[in-house]
Amino acid sequence: MIEAKTERIRQDLEAMGRITATPGAGMTRFSFTEEHRLTRDYISGRMKEAGLAVFQDEAGNLFGRREGTCEGAPAVMVGSHFDSVKNGGIFDGPAGVVMGLEVARILHDENIKTRYPLEFAALVEEEGARFGGGLHGSRVMAGLVRREMLDSFKDRDGVSMAEAMSAFGLNPDLITSAVRPAESLKAFIEMHIEQGPVLENEGVEVGLVKTIVGISQKEIEILGRPDHAGTTPMEMRCNALTAAAEAALFLDEAARKAGGGTVSTVGRMEVYPGGTNIVPGRVFFTIDVRAAEMARIKQVTDAFGEFLKNLEKRGLEVRVTDRITVPPVDMSPEILELFAAEARKRGYSSKVMQSGAGHDAMIMAGITDAGLVFVPSKGGRSHCPDEWTDYGQIKKGVDVVLGAVLSLAEAEV
Amino acid sequence: MIEAKTERIRQDLEAMGRITATPGAGMTRFSFTEEHRLTRDYISGRMKEAGLAVFQDEAGNLFGRREGTCEGAPAVMVGSHFDSVKNGGIFDGPAGVVMGLEVARILHDENIKTRYPLEFAALVEEEGARFGGGLHGSRVMAGLVRREMLDSFKDRDGVSMAEAMSAFGLNPDLITSAVRPAESLKAFIEMHIEQGPVLENEGVEVGLVKTIVGISQKEIEILGRPDHAGTTPMEMRCNALTAAAEAALFLDEAARKAGGGTVSTVGRMEVYPGGTNIVPGRVFFTIDVRAAEMARIKQVTDAFGEFLKNLEKRGLEVRVTDRITVPPVDMSPEILELFAAEARKRGYSSKVMQSGAGHDAMIMAGITDAGLVFVPSKGGRSHCPDEWTDYGQIKKGVDVVLGAVLSLAEAEV
Repeated sequence: MIEAKTERIRQDLEAMGRITATPGAGMTRFSFTEEHRLTRDYISGRMKEAGLAVFQDEAGNLFGRREGTCEGAPAVMVGSHFDSVKNGGIFDGPAGVVMGLEVARILHDENIKTRYPLEFAALVEEEGARFGGGLHGSRVMAGLVRREMLDSFKDRDGVSMAEAMSAFGLNPDLITSAVRPAESLKAFIEMHIEQGPVLENEGVEVGLVKTIVGISQKEIEILGRPDHAGTTPMEMRCNALTAAAEAALFLDEAARKAGGGTVSTVGRMEVYPGGTNIVPGRVFFTIDVRAAEMARIKQVTDAFGEFLKNLEKRGLEVRVTDRITVPPVDMSPEILELFAAEARKRGYSSKVMQSGAGHDAMIMAGITDAGLVFVPSKGGRSHCPDEWTDYGQIKKGVDVVLGAVLSLAEAEV
Repeated sequence: MIEAKTERIRQDLEAMGRITATPGAGMTRFSFTEEHRLTRDYISGRMKEAGLAVFQDEAGNLFGRREGTCEGAPAVMVGSHFDSVKNGGIFDGPAGVVMGLEVARILHDENIKTRYPLEFAALVEEEGARFGGGLHGSRVMAGLVRREMLDSFKDRDGVSMAEAMSAFGLNPDLITSAVRPAESLKAFIEMHIEQGPVLENEGVEVGLVKTIVGISQKEIEILGRPDHAGTTPMEMRCNALTAAAEAALFLDEAARKAGGGTVSTVGRMEVYPGGTNIVPGRVFFTIDVRAAEMARIKQVTDAFGEFLKNLEKRGLEVRVTDRITVPPVDMSPEILELFAAEARKRGYSSKVMQSGAGHDAMIMAGITDAGLVFVPSKGGRSHCPDEWTDYGQIKKGVDVVLGAVLSLAEAEV
């Protein structure tokens, strides 16, 4: 029985995995493209087979609805996104969509009735890979997207999201019809691959997300003085690169000191003028700090700010530009406890953890109770063709979500 | 009297400074161009006024010869180069050429006879700005340039040096006719701007170069693992950038420890994949180590090699490519003493120092006794439009060289 369900999961993910704009170079499924359409139609077909009533909202999100016995009751929504980054893997997003399909199939096959209606969701443009925004499908549902924003989001060819939507058969002027009033939802449950190494390293089967971390991203520019590398003695230099090197190491150490899973990263660095025989006069770099508590993020960025002030005392000029500040978002403790109880019941090892990446559940938490389950990523890899999660592990994630869904939707036993 | 000579120096440098391919954007005088021709003709005119017999060798080097009283005696050569980098200043090179003109004028005006002949030189393609080689005019004289090399050096438009020479009226097939046998030269004396901040910072008027430093340049690649900046805990990362940051700081400290004026620089650094939210998986950078003794260079590069080995023990992969190794070159101690004596006599402050940059004198030292005098660079700047040396400071350099020339060429008093 378990074998057959794992096989269905494998078939769905591999079928969707073949619909890519970059065959042989990973999964590329941008929003409002032919790959989007083909994948949507595949999901729609599976939804119908599971007895769901299928509809698409004006954002392009796809839903399969299963009515409950209590008329007019708010829905329990289950799913994830089905777009991808460029040259990504087949699990990031679709694993959670197929989880929804599988939950729907089990309810259908076993003819389980629930008091609350269920909606199985396949959301669009979570990655922002085509239009640069990200978390778009859920943001539309949460009422965070205005009509004019669809004109300002543009792809590399200058096509606006509104234009792409129209070509796809959607009406951008009706975008707010896709907003979900808070009272129409009872809960949102997502399953996603971890995209990190923690579950695999610790040999844990299911991750139960307590908090999606907050993020602070800044751009830093350090200006020293470009000097001849041969003729300028060490003690007369104003070297922007050694200052930036100190900064990168300081930031790394500051995150370790802050603890509680705080992470910090210098991901981009550009060195000018960039000659082998020239002492660097200017270095640009980015910092990315994340933690489950805003206080820890602040601890790191405050300490880093002090560090930069000390650089200025040494004659360097420092420019800081704030890019993004997103506070942490807590998942529903009640839903987390439902996940934990189901895992215990089935004997699956689980771990309460934070999510270091943003997910649609983070946006949905603004309008309803949200839950997020992680399944292990092999080698912690994602956003690359070798992204991998064993189908049996996905099946365990499905089981844990199913338990919570039966409870939240009040299955009639 | 001193005023008038300083004024002549100013006029010559400013006249040559107006012959640029980039008016309003500094000095650009590439070899075998119209700017080269106009500047050569200007220098040639001044040489003739100073009573010199002017000739050009097949490399394009220009000479003004003044015979001595002893027939067949080897010549004392005095001068520097007159090409420039792109968008450079008017002093780097021409200051030494005008120094030669001024020495020639003084000998001419005061009707001083010398036992040994003198040759005042204006050399080509020292910067390598057009053809990428550098120190070319002196390398030809030292017999280090073969005919076929003139085909392999090409400019950005694909024009070979041989083609450019032919268009300029030179015969590349006769290049070796420009070789100067060691026995034909008694000494080579160059004056150059310091291109560094030492003389200005220390308030010293004339720099007496003891050694032109040796150089070791390598390319380093550090390979870690690119990871998601949000989902990868600090302790599970294999961060190529923090490793490279440690490397840059280690190299900086190693040069300071080696002492004796040793310098080291990471001038280029490229970080991959270069996403704000991705832990860097690969960093490329260059190192440039210079010292007056090979042992100090080795001390730094050996210590750095040990550092890299330790990185490998931490799971990073390191690739090292040797690019350039040039041993230090000593200037003639006897000529340096002649400079020092003349500076003492005139009450000029002087400092025995090293040159951190390469100069034609380094090549000429391979075939004759060489001497190199530095004059201060304002703010240590060079290779830029705001490169500056006061004309009165150049005059002091001229005086110091003149004293040495009178002695080496055995002026008849």
